[in-house]
Amino acid sequence: MSRGRIERVLARRLRAGGAIDEGRRPDELIVEEPLEIRLDDRLVATTMRTPGHDFELAIGLCHNDGLLGDAPVVTCRYCATGSATDTEFNVVSVDTAGLAPEPPPRLGTTSSACGICGTTQLDDLTTRLKVIPDHEPWAPSVLLAAVDAVREHQDLFARTGAVHAAASFDRQGAIDIVREDIGRHNAVDKVIGASALAGDLPLHDRVLMVSGRAGFEIVQKAAVAGIPVLAAVSAPSSLAADAAERLGMTLVGFLRGDGFNVYCGAERIAGA
Amino acid sequence: MSRGRIERVLARRLRAGGAIDEGRRPDELIVEEPLEIRLDDRLVATTMRTPGHDFELAIGLCHNDGLLGDAPVVTCRYCATGSATDTEFNVVSVDTAGLAPEPPPRLGTTSSACGICGTTQLDDLTTRLKVIPDHEPWAPSVLLAAVDAVREHQDLFARTGAVHAAASFDRQGAIDIVREDIGRHNAVDKVIGASALAGDLPLHDRVLMVSGRAGFEIVQKAAVAGIPVLAAVSAPSSLAADAAERLGMTLVGFLRGDGFNVYCGAERIAGA
Repeated sequence: MSRGRIERVLARRLRAGGAIDEGRRPDELIVEEPLEIRLDDRLVATTMRTPGHDFELAIGLCHNDGLLGDAPVVTCRYCATGSATDTEFNVVSVDTAGLAPEPPPRLGTTSSACGICGTTQLDDLTTRLKVIPDHEPWAPSVLLAAVDAVREHQDLFARTGAVHAAASFDRQGAIDIVREDIGRHNAVDKVIGASALAGDLPLHDRVLMVSGRAGFEIVQKAAVAGIPVLAAVSAPSSLAADAAERLGMTLVGFLRGDGFNVYCGAERIAGA
Repeated sequence: MSRGRIERVLARRLRAGGAIDEGRRPDELIVEEPLEIRLDDRLVATTMRTPGHDFELAIGLCHNDGLLGDAPVVTCRYCATGSATDTEFNVVSVDTAGLAPEPPPRLGTTSSACGICGTTQLDDLTTRLKVIPDHEPWAPSVLLAAVDAVREHQDLFARTGAVHAAASFDRQGAIDIVREDIGRHNAVDKVIGASALAGDLPLHDRVLMVSGRAGFEIVQKAAVAGIPVLAAVSAPSSLAADAAERLGMTLVGFLRGDGFNVYCGAERIAGA
């Protein structure tokens, strides 16, 4: 990788108790850079992200936002170089040989959607998603153990305290993929993009865990990837809980070492 | 307010140690709903937000993203009703009688910006911003005391654990405005939008505090509002530190009761 994900800086440290100046000391900051994502040469998103796993991010975002339709990804490359070997440039092109549908215009246009609300968005989502099949329930012990297991992979968080993580793990608690990013949505896109690149979608027999909160858009991404159980270390939002219930997913929140909450889909958790 | 910012749900609680099922118990979730923001009848943004202070959010976002130019806000209203009295509808129209410049098309268009990077964005930003004037330094004790003072206003966080806060305070530590939102950028937009509505911009003699991390976009919003000191409870990103330095701002990170880090602009902190 030609560009680091951590930058070392000197920061002046002031300590309370008269605000004692401890002078300038080295500190590690997480790198944040914009990424432009293009689909068949159209700009579809610009996101601030932590460099690394950029193709996963680009493909994951296109997939999770429903931009690919049924089109296969033919190539993925850095725009300025045609090379897939470094992250020096911040433009990634996903190419489907023109088979992806035209992306919907979103900004700068007038829509007639007065009264947009969560229900509207949920209606849109449920019409384009397949139902997630049922499987045997998950052992609560597997979910509880995942918190520590994933944390061992959160190297950037340990050093900077400034990144979110997303991870997928299987029924035995074996962790497939962990990705860290300054944007929590990006971390999820990277995990699902990695699964897409490996040909593993839909992820019908995996839990998606996120290190922070679960908002509507996280539930949406998990649902599009066919994931039956979403587990968040922090709180879900009201719309996330509504969406998960309506989409037939299991939503777990406040997943910590000492327990967790189940907001819907409790039939997928053994003993609940 | 016709729509609450908190929704009560029943959640099943499982506790570790054999994952004991404690049954369904009431829990409070933060409400998340989409808001469409229009400027002179053009859709300029859709954001997932916590309802409340929607006009502040809409005006703050238009201001902070540079969409207003020098145009004054003539009216701000809910689109479906023409009324400013409730949050039942999730579309807010900001009107400048057509004086705002045409918003730049962002999605679905082709740009020639291969090699977009933080430096490009910083160049764009510095060309359109005025320099923030210098003032006498701030007492570290004021910054240290602000953490607890702001937390007393974080009602939604205390109940749901799922919202960010942004706040502005003056040289004596008196808190002007505290806003909470499920999106940390929204919380900042609300604070600055409230200041805009009060005719208080630019905020040359205020600190902007955020309860989480400081990324590039938070620095950008603070800079556009003329704020000299940005203080984050958590970590800044590398690009945030670069931006703050180049824009002549003071950037404080890891602001806790026991001290803080100063990444740039230490001349505005007394004793540093």
